[in-house]
Amino acid sequence: MEQQILKINAKIVCAASVVGHKEHEGPLGSYFDIYDQTDKFKQKTWEKAESEMQRVALSAALTKAGLEENDVGAMFAGDLLNQCVGSAYGLLNFDIPYFGLYGACSTAVEGLMLASLLITGGHFKRCATISSSHFCSAEQQYRTPLEYGGQRPPTAQWTVTGSGAFIVGDSKAVGVKICAALPGIVIEKGVNDASNMGAAMAPAAIDTLLRFFKESKTSAADYDAIYTGDLGAEGSKILKEFMEADGYPINENHFDCGNLIFDPEYQDVHSGGSGCGCSAVVLASYILPKIRSGEIKKALVIGTGAMMSPSSLKQGLAIPAIAHLIMLEHEGAEDGNK
Amino acid sequence: MEQQILKINAKIVCAASVVGHKEHEGPLGSYFDIYDQTDKFKQKTWEKAESEMQRVALSAALTKAGLEENDVGAMFAGDLLNQCVGSAYGLLNFDIPYFGLYGACSTAVEGLMLASLLITGGHFKRCATISSSHFCSAEQQYRTPLEYGGQRPPTAQWTVTGSGAFIVGDSKAVGVKICAALPGIVIEKGVNDASNMGAAMAPAAIDTLLRFFKESKTSAADYDAIYTGDLGAEGSKILKEFMEADGYPINENHFDCGNLIFDPEYQDVHSGGSGCGCSAVVLASYILPKIRSGEIKKALVIGTGAMMSPSSLKQGLAIPAIAHLIMLEHEGAEDGNK
Repeated sequence: MEQQILKINAKIVCAASVVGHKEHEGPLGSYFDIYDQTDKFKQKTWEKAESEMQRVALSAALTKAGLEENDVGAMFAGDLLNQCVGSAYGLLNFDIPYFGLYGACSTAVEGLMLASLLITGGHFKRCATISSSHFCSAEQQYRTPLEYGGQRPPTAQWTVTGSGAFIVGDSKAVGVKICAALPGIVIEKGVNDASNMGAAMAPAAIDTLLRFFKESKTSAADYDAIYTGDLGAEGSKILKEFMEADGYPINENHFDCGNLIFDPEYQDVHSGGSGCGCSAVVLASYILPKIRSGEIKKALVIGTGAMMSPSSLKQGLAIPAIAHLIMLEHEGAEDGNK
Repeated sequence: MEQQILKINAKIVCAASVVGHKEHEGPLGSYFDIYDQTDKFKQKTWEKAESEMQRVALSAALTKAGLEENDVGAMFAGDLLNQCVGSAYGLLNFDIPYFGLYGACSTAVEGLMLASLLITGGHFKRCATISSSHFCSAEQQYRTPLEYGGQRPPTAQWTVTGSGAFIVGDSKAVGVKICAALPGIVIEKGVNDASNMGAAMAPAAIDTLLRFFKESKTSAADYDAIYTGDLGAEGSKILKEFMEADGYPINENHFDCGNLIFDPEYQDVHSGGSGCGCSAVVLASYILPKIRSGEIKKALVIGTGAMMSPSSLKQGLAIPAIAHLIMLEHEGAEDGNK
């Protein structure tokens, strides 16, 4: 097997987040850049609202960074909608070469990984990564239309209405360092309940984290924080139990974006947040500023994705999942892996 | 604007194709590696048949190349099914890091581009790229179930049942050289007819080809052949007319995989073939052998994709399209762009 951890020498220069009203009302509400109380973003359909969030997120990230669209060599984008139309339409107005991704809720990290790898390889000076999800478009596509009023089981997660955009630059730029990446392997362990995606995704996160710790000869103690994308309460519990059983406990410093974004007591989200937008907006507006300020010096971020479709579940198949990992460091931090 | 053409130094080491009965009966039938007369590949649903084609295609490519799965550093895969389940399930058994793509019918070229860029950058020694489409799964998802017996207009294309897998290696490997790439920009020119995807995709192909010719200061005469993915008869006509009007005629040496794969007289496919599998299998089993043998020394391959969804069309939106370009050369050919 080739060595699997990829060395990266790039920086996240800037990021922006756009969210809906529920995310704005949550514990991280004040961190997000832009929100719309109606979740509609002046659009007539939920799908168009999702596209609009992507457009606004990328525009905001470019503005923050003081960049024009022609300063960006390529963009990597994806979402949960069929044929990833959230991205295709949302980013149509940007005259930037486009790589479409499908990584389900791991898309933000998949995009950051590819963007930073291509920058490390010298192919681009600067790239953008954008992803999104919308509670209403996701419910209607994956489960039942909102009007149906279906009951949600306790293990169900609440799809985040949000879009995060990131500008990645080369090592000379100022920003948060991306130092390493470990792409995920598709894992399926028999979970076929679309209302328990945390359990479906946990095995992929375990696989990636164990591969990373073993190859890098590090453990949780070497990082200030380990963030997973959207395992929620259920998936996080499974992840922590298995990591402990495997001899790599992460109880002390594990956080999950799906647990952070909503208040479990007051927001009735059951097992937490999920969706391509979940890890994207939490990373963009909550985690990155902590690393930029030096409050966190070194972190692992693991984007987790459940890659089933409503059809594949109806045909009796279980949920395949993936977990992509990147290692982030405060600009001033020394690279402990040298 | 950054220079847009990306220099690549990688080789397509090996490729394999799997097709259905109609593709086997077509003009290129004898070139394809594997076919199933029933189009079912021993599966109970069309979606599972599509996944099985991907599994078989990658297995065949690995076997041809004399490689094991752990010789491959990463795979890039995608298809047309909602949430790209053709790839997620089809490749589940391979213990290879996975990057999910959504580029509609441009996926094969998008994957070859990313794989060869990451190899050029030194991140991987060897990668795989796999994509697929299936006539029956696509009809039921995009248009009407087969049993409905809907009439097809003359501009409609026939989704190819097929999967192509490619193994890309570094410059030391033996194979067809990938010398350059130009990623596409998403273009939408108002075509909203899902039965005329050639017309929707042609503007993207024109944009990419013109950008390539202008930046590289070359024209069609500098290449033995220019292949587009799946513009079909209608889209190819538009492409050729506009390229001529723009001062870069390609009439002499343009071919379209969608036109090559079926016999327009005897196979009743109207405007030709389409689908992620179309350019994948034609490139894998017809174009690459010609370049390998030296019959073609230098070629451009432009993967074209229409990125709408049935929902986006119902919501009144037009079809956004993309065209990704790679330049291929016979191993012995000199690089005329130096």
